[in-house]
Order: sequence, then structure tokens, then C-alpha cells
Amino acid sequence: MSEPVTVIGASGALGFGLALRLGLAGVPVAVGSRDAERAAETVRRLREGAPEGSFDGDANGPAAERSEVVVLSVPFRSQSETLTNLRQHLREGQLVIDATVPLAAAVSGKATRMLGVWQGSAAQQAAEMVPEGVRVVSALHTVSAATLGDPGHALDEDVLVCGDRKADKARAAALIQRIPGLRCVDCGRLEMARLTESLTALLIGVNVRYKTHAGIRVTGLPEVSWEAR
Amino acid sequence: MSEPVTVIGASGALGFGLALRLGLAGVPVAVGSRDAERAAETVRRLREGAPEGSFDGDANGPAAERSEVVVLSVPFRSQSETLTNLRQHLREGQLVIDATVPLAAAVSGKATRMLGVWQGSAAQQAAEMVPEGVRVVSALHTVSAATLGDPGHALDEDVLVCGDRKADKARAAALIQRIPGLRCVDCGRLEMARLTESLTALLIGVNVRYKTHAGIRVTGLPEVSWEAR
Repeated sequence: MSEPVTVIGASGALGFGLALRLGLAGVPVAVGSRDAERAAETVRRLREGAPEGSFDGDANGPAAERSEVVVLSVPFRSQSETLTNLRQHLREGQLVIDATVPLAAAVSGKATRMLGVWQGSAAQQAAEMVPEGVRVVSALHTVSAATLGDPGHALDEDVLVCGDRKADKARAAALIQRIPGLRCVDCGRLEMARLTESLTALLIGVNVRYKTHAGIRVTGLPEVSWEAR
Repeated sequence: MSEPVTVIGASGALGFGLALRLGLAGVPVAVGSRDAERAAETVRRLREGAPEGSFDGDANGPAAERSEVVVLSVPFRSQSETLTNLRQHLREGQLVIDATVPLAAAVSGKATRMLGVWQGSAAQQAAEMVPEGVRVVSALHTVSAATLGDPGHALDEDVLVCGDRKADKARAAALIQRIPGLRCVDCGRLEMARLTESLTALLIGVNVRYKTHAGIRVTGLPEVSWEAR
């Protein structure tokens, strides 16, 4: 049996798709939402999409306590508030996988433009805000929520992972690569998240122009798994 | 017979590889370098690599006058100076394909970090500096110089193209796609170059970690050529 993972913001499109795919892959998922009722509703929808999956729902705080790995998948507008509320629930040794993207849409701007974040990126803001001893990696910005949420759509793309410790990135990759068709690529230190986060804005524009749900593949990589490196 | 293209900075690794591949694809290439002698030396090297290619060399200014399409492939450190010197040589109707990347390496920083450019990106700086009526698109940041320069290496990756006019991007794509294995993807307006340029920094880090020459592929795109859209 796999270790459980918590998805904060699983009522949102990306969080939902991720929870669904993880559930289908046999990972027990604790679903976090702003309130427990919304979480329960999301769990109902997840069970419809993946009857064989293991899903439980709760408000963000208690949900975050249930797993060693916590995916943060909230709009940038809510990231800071969510992390403030999570402070008393997160504990040393936990790993936060931050998928937040500071799109200008957060302040009624365009979804193809980025906001400048004082710390450099949403992931670095997260790293500043989590309690001491909680690790942060950045990932999952280029995977389309629509594609994730449609299990009939076979995935075949990369997930760009940034973080300051290799062990943290390997831990995140081991989880994410449970989802068939996703390959994790080590994109360096957490500060590189300012580059990987911005790919979301780029892909949103590509999606509009090409009427698709695009992703990213890094070419020229050796065909070895993350673990084998 | 193809129309010729000028490559400014063809003595550098990216410019050389690009000139070589274009020459092999049957495009006559005017090679620009800071001085004519260096250009002539580069032409000698290009003829060695592609004896069937058509190459001519000159100092940047005269070289830029020879073609309707001018690729600017210089280090960011030299971009502004080069464009100032080109002002009297560029003319209305020409298209500049800017491949400049504002890596922090330009000011003795890391090649995995970016500089902030006042105009937003190197391409936008170029657009500000060219004479009235000269168009600028941004492209070619994610194609490895080493891979381009080794014709034995089959290419299979995308070129991300940004620009404010579709016709300009189509013109650039028609040229770039002469090189087998390169597919151009419309990444939106020129301002999006701040995102595509930064991918160079990301890939430089990936190359070090994976000991490779990585590129980018956008997944999920319809299999239609640029022209068919």
C-alpha cells in the first residue's frame, strides 16, 4: 500500500486532476479544500471518476496533517493565505510540492502574463512561509489540468521539478511518476521555479492559439529514470 | 534558389551551427562578424562542414545589407552595441530574428540565471533599437549550439517563436523549418520572449545535470505545419 498524499486545493481543476490520477495509480489521497463540505463534495466527484481509488476529504489544515507529502495546488491569489493557515498544521519533515503559478490573472491581468513575486517565485514564497523543517519543491506547472482530469487522455510529457535538495526532488518525482506518462526532470534549485512557473503563461497562450492542451517535453535526455541517476 | 539569410554573430557557437544547418538545407548564408577577416575565417570553417553550401562573409554591417532576413545571434553583452552599429545598415521591410539571451553570464554571473532587461526581454530591446520599419521576432533560444553544429546529430525539437505580427513569425518559421527536425511553435507576442529566452538558462542547468544537449518540445500540438494554420 502506498503512502498517502494530501492535495490542497483539490476542488480546483489542477488539484482535482492530480488527485484523480494519483487515486487511479493506487495512491491514497487526502483531499483538502477551504471547508470540509467542499472537500467532501470533491471526494464524491473523485470516487465517480476513480471508483477503485482511495479518497478522503477534510478542510485544508486537517488534510495537510494526514500525509508526509502535501501538494499545494491553489490559485496564486490564495497561496499566501493558505500557507498562513497551514502553518499550525504542517510539521518538520513534511514535503510540500508547490504547483502555484503567479499569473497576472490573480490581479485581474492576463493569464499569459506573470506577476513578479518578491521572493522570486511562488515556490520561493512558499519556502519562506512554511514552518522550519518543512521542505518545498516546485513542480507540475506545465501539466494541463484538463488533460489530467480526463483519464481517457494518455499522458506523455515531462514535469519540471525544482528544489534545493536532491532527496526532496527524488521524493516528489517518485510520487509524480506514479502517474503513467509523466516523467520528472530535475531543473535545478528552487530559485529556477521562476522559470518553470512562467511556462504556464506560455502554454496558456499556446493552448488558445492551437486549441489544445499543450505540455512540455525536454528533448535529448538519457532514458533513465529519476531513481537511476 | 532560396533567398539568402544573414547570420550576425556566425563566429559564435549558435550562429555557426545555424549558418551550417541553413547552408546544408540549401539556403545561401551571408556570415556577419565583428570584422571581415573573422567572417572570412568562419566562412572557411562553414565550407569545410558543408562543402555544398553557399556562404559569404563580411563585417556585420555590410552582411546585414545582403538579406531580407537577418538572424541576430550575439552574446547579450554585445547585443546593444551590435544593434547600434547595425542601425545605418538595416532598412525598412527587413526582418530581424533575435536569438539573444540575457544570461547573467553577461555580467560574470551564472549561465543558469537571467538578467532583468528594462524593455522586458532581449528581443524587446532589439525591437526598440532597430530602425523604423524593421520587424523583430524572437526565436532559437532552446536549440543547442553544439547540436546544431554537429550535422551528424539528427534534430527533433521545437523552436519557440514570439512576435507581434503573424506574417513575421510565419516568415521566420518558413526559414527555420528549412532545417530538418526543427518545428516552429507560435508562442505569442514579442513580450513573451521574456519567457522563451529564460528557457536557455533552464536548459543550461539541465545540460550540466544530465550531461546532454537538451531541447524543448511542446506536446499536444496538432500535427500541422506553420503554413497550414
